[in-house]
Amino acid sequence: MPEAFPGDADTTVAELRRNMAAFVEERQWRHFHSPKNISMALAVEAAELLEHFQWMDSEESRHIDADAEKLAAVAEEIADVVGYSFAIANELGIDLSQTIRAKMVKNAQKYPAEQFQGRHELGQDGKPVG
Amino acid sequence: MPEAFPGDADTTVAELRRNMAAFVEERQWRHFHSPKNISMALAVEAAELLEHFQWMDSEESRHIDADAEKLAAVAEEIADVVGYSFAIANELGIDLSQTIRAKMVKNAQKYPAEQFQGRHELGQDGKPVG
Amino acid sequence: MPEAFPGDADTTVAELRRNMAAFVEERQWRHFHSPKNISMALAVEAAELLEHFQWMDSEESRHIDADAEKLAAVAEEIADVVGYSFAIANELGIDLSQTIRAKMVKNAQKYPAEQFQGRHELGQDGKPVG
Amino acid sequence: MPEAFPGDADTTVAELRRNMAAFVEERQWRHFHSPKNISMALAVEAAELLEHFQWMDSEESRHIDADAEKLAAVAEEIADVVGYSFAIANELGIDLSQTIRAKMVKNAQKYPAEQFQGRHELGQDGKPVG
Repeated sequence: MPEAFPGDADTTVAELRRNMAAFVEERQWRHFHSPKNISMALAVEAAELLEHFQWMDSEESRHIDADAEKLAAVAEEIADVVGYSFAIANELGIDLSQTIRAKMVKNAQKYPAEQFQGRHELGQDGKPVG
Repeated sequence: MPEAFPGDADTTVAELRRNMAAFVEERQWRHFHSPKNISMALAVEAAELLEHFQWMDSEESRHIDADAEKLAAVAEEIADVVGYSFAIANELGIDLSQTIRAKMVKNAQKYPAEQFQGRHELGQDGKPVG
Repeated sequence: MPEAFPGDADTTVAELRRNMAAFVEERQWRHFHSPKNISMALAVEAAELLEHFQWMDSEESRHIDADAEKLAAVAEEIADVVGYSFAIANELGIDLSQTIRAKMVKNAQKYPAEQFQGRHELGQDGKPVG
Repeated sequence: MPEAFPGDADTTVAELRRNMAAFVEERQWRHFHSPKNISMALAVEAAELLEHFQWMDSEESRHIDADAEKLAAVAEEIADVVGYSFAIANELGIDLSQTIRAKMVKNAQKYPAEQFQGRHELGQDGKPVG
């Protein structure tokens, strides 16, 4: 990982979004960047991330940081996904931090912590199951 | 869009990542959150974003902000994609801001602005084409 | 396109499924082929198909057969998607022809032909819209 | 699974493709069915398949046939993926059986059975690894 660049603790979402907007602007790529097209590019990057893990055990996927090259490749795919997320948010004028925070409040109501300890779904009796 | 929450200009990537980590921790969901599983959940959300645009013209997709409900639904899908991007970065200890900035330097070298004006690809003669 | 192989008119779904099963068996790959893993591989191939069309206009995508190399590449991605569909059906013992036919009956009820002429969705008034 | 419909052993690929073509034609949906749009719809269905397995262990995914309802839901997602594969092949005039057979010959050369016993990838020394 390059140490030279400012990290997540010192970077606002708006800064990264501006970087992405400038990159697109400098190449006059906005005519490619319809939300429809970006949603496709984003899905492609999401699948490239998926590809790293497709034949791997779930447990094995927790330990890929043992392989620096693999970890760097995976990190780049995540960066691409986030990059296109910023690109589509730029085109549509969406504030991501507000949306994410609002969604988390919604999710916290949907999945009350005390009820969903270690569980993701409700069973047929209305109680959460694994 | 809820105005009550701090926006992208006032939010570091690290803050949003901590919110996501806390959400997962409070529900003891880390045993679900192998990188393999999260990559699948992320791809599912990317496809839900895709779904909004699947039968729409490219041009039409630029104007969905005319429909506030549609825009809010799309914004939530993007938020979900970014949320899972944070979740997988959390599990793997990846600094996203550094990775995104490094990737942009790499992309700027791959796509020199003067050469790729309004073009995405190189033709068979080595010159960029639309 | 290779002319030497039997085509769709002379090939049952079962034959293609057996070919795929033999391929997997000969390499002892069934331990990789959990339905979870195959669903990931299938999504990766679906995204490779998507990638061919991501920056292209909808109309332009109708004419890629003008470029034989492009068409062959796209055809291979579709073949990969169908191949993994057969692989997962093999693992789970699903009859695809029966399922597809049953689904079409269901879809014909969901989208009555006379009501959905040229339209995909129902509007808020319950009438189909573009 | 409905027993009334002919199964994979008695169904050619061409028959299922014709059923799909008729369904689209009867609703005048071809103007929606650009290859670009269908590739998106296909990716959405692939992700709905993925969704069933996202929080499940690889091993657990092998035993979903114990739950008839779950199996039927998964079968429908696979049917949807194959259905859209037929739809895009219809639009582009691709013979799927020929393409799949040609691809298998290619894959058999890429992954010689004797060399790839139980292995998917070549290691840095050129020998296959798990």
